[in-house]
Amino acid sequence: MDATSRIEQALTAVLAPAESIGCPPQLAAAIRYAVFPGGARIRPRLCLAVARANAEDDRSVSNAAAASIELLHCASLVHDDLPCFDNADMRRGKLSVHRAFGERLGVLVGDALIVQAFQTLANGASRVPQRLAALLQIVGNSVGTSAGIVAGQAWECEPRVGLSDYQKAKTGALFAAASMAGAAAAGCRYPESWRALGERLGEAYQVADDILDVVGNPLELGKPTGRDALLSRPNAPRELGMHGALQRLEYLVAGAIDSIPACPGADELRAIIMTEAAGLLPEKFRHAA
Amino acid sequence: MDATSRIEQALTAVLAPAESIGCPPQLAAAIRYAVFPGGARIRPRLCLAVARANAEDDRSVSNAAAASIELLHCASLVHDDLPCFDNADMRRGKLSVHRAFGERLGVLVGDALIVQAFQTLANGASRVPQRLAALLQIVGNSVGTSAGIVAGQAWECEPRVGLSDYQKAKTGALFAAASMAGAAAAGCRYPESWRALGERLGEAYQVADDILDVVGNPLELGKPTGRDALLSRPNAPRELGMHGALQRLEYLVAGAIDSIPACPGADELRAIIMTEAAGLLPEKFRHAA
Repeated sequence: MDATSRIEQALTAVLAPAESIGCPPQLAAAIRYAVFPGGARIRPRLCLAVARANAEDDRSVSNAAAASIELLHCASLVHDDLPCFDNADMRRGKLSVHRAFGERLGVLVGDALIVQAFQTLANGASRVPQRLAALLQIVGNSVGTSAGIVAGQAWECEPRVGLSDYQKAKTGALFAAASMAGAAAAGCRYPESWRALGERLGEAYQVADDILDVVGNPLELGKPTGRDALLSRPNAPRELGMHGALQRLEYLVAGAIDSIPACPGADELRAIIMTEAAGLLPEKFRHAA
Repeated sequence: MDATSRIEQALTAVLAPAESIGCPPQLAAAIRYAVFPGGARIRPRLCLAVARANAEDDRSVSNAAAASIELLHCASLVHDDLPCFDNADMRRGKLSVHRAFGERLGVLVGDALIVQAFQTLANGASRVPQRLAALLQIVGNSVGTSAGIVAGQAWECEPRVGLSDYQKAKTGALFAAASMAGAAAAGCRYPESWRALGERLGEAYQVADDILDVVGNPLELGKPTGRDALLSRPNAPRELGMHGALQRLEYLVAGAIDSIPACPGADELRAIIMTEAAGLLPEKFRHAA
């Protein structure tokens, strides 16, 4: 089974409780709406690729890790879109959750997905307690108050924002967790050595996202462009120029590939990262640097 | 050390990361504000009392269980108070979190406390992996989408509400988790046998809360009264009459005490429950039934 099918099946399986009798029907529908159909699923793909590179021996553990990270990503999108934050009407080519289901369900879907992410780890890794403890630590930190997504979003509420702290927490933390959780799920004893790969890819992804916010097609992206300028958010092409931003992207992807630790599947992983990185921007922008 | 001091110390310790360098200062302040000073801390008190009754052998595990449950309770208050739900200005005698820090930090504080609750379990129980797995299950279910707090709150968004499902999920689930988590933290093999105690106490607490919403003093309660009538929410005295509601409260507390499973500290636990139950209503209302 390819990575995409594994991820969709894992997400479907872990959300099955939300279809159960006890769940309020609108909440169940809003949760499904927030998770399916997904975006590029780039974080869980990274997670599974790193697990494979580390000779994964229990797919149910790496599936749980990948699914939990995607659920947290979806949760952050739903809460970021709320009226008090970005007030976004569209997401992934359809109405945002709060626009489709109301603001109350927007808040609750985010909460539900955070809870579900931790339940997913608990259920998927309970047979391998040491890995469970490592995964909880990695995933918890990536969304927590010190350097995780919640911290990243909260920097937007501060009068002064440390740009590097902001981007590391808001984007880098979950990419780093995807990479480290893939290693931990496969039983790697030092998942921390996989942090650099995730962090650099996260930064590369942020630069690509910034570029698309300037030159992308809203219909292809499924969300409006020009939001960074409108909301006065930092943006790589506006700071470095388009040429500089494209150079930075290449530099980050090269750095990510160089950071891959020695492991059984390093060659295959390098090839996967190069393919994934090439997909960050449409063909026409790729060779402009 | 008495239970109250243990709980406050445990909460202070688990929130220390929110004071660390990486945490945005306003987020750290808003988290502290949401957790301290607390209310009656009735859920973590129940958790610790059950752990003691089960001859707890590792206080750090039961402290973690109690703290995680109180963090989730605080998270639910902060999100329930948001403008899109109860739009409450006051909580625990001071401005609600979103009124004091803004709506964005209201959303983020709730998110942060949910994450912190699971991190607290992971850190506090990592040395006893079987208990960690049981605690994650118990605590996760109590806030989840099938019969947990998120489901309880989401029933408010449905055109038709199953009253029993609603109250069990919104109030009973976390009380049941407090009781079961106390048992699991002490190594009890069948924490499920402690569910009835928590559920009945949760229902009793709900009835007492309904009574206070009708006859309580807003200054003593630290929140406005008459909210149930205003928001058309179910309320025991309005349905059963005041006399009927007080009888129901007595019946539920008696049932809770009867449900206590055989355990080393059953006698002491019964005495604690009676004292706690007596504190649910001010003296003047207690003997009206």
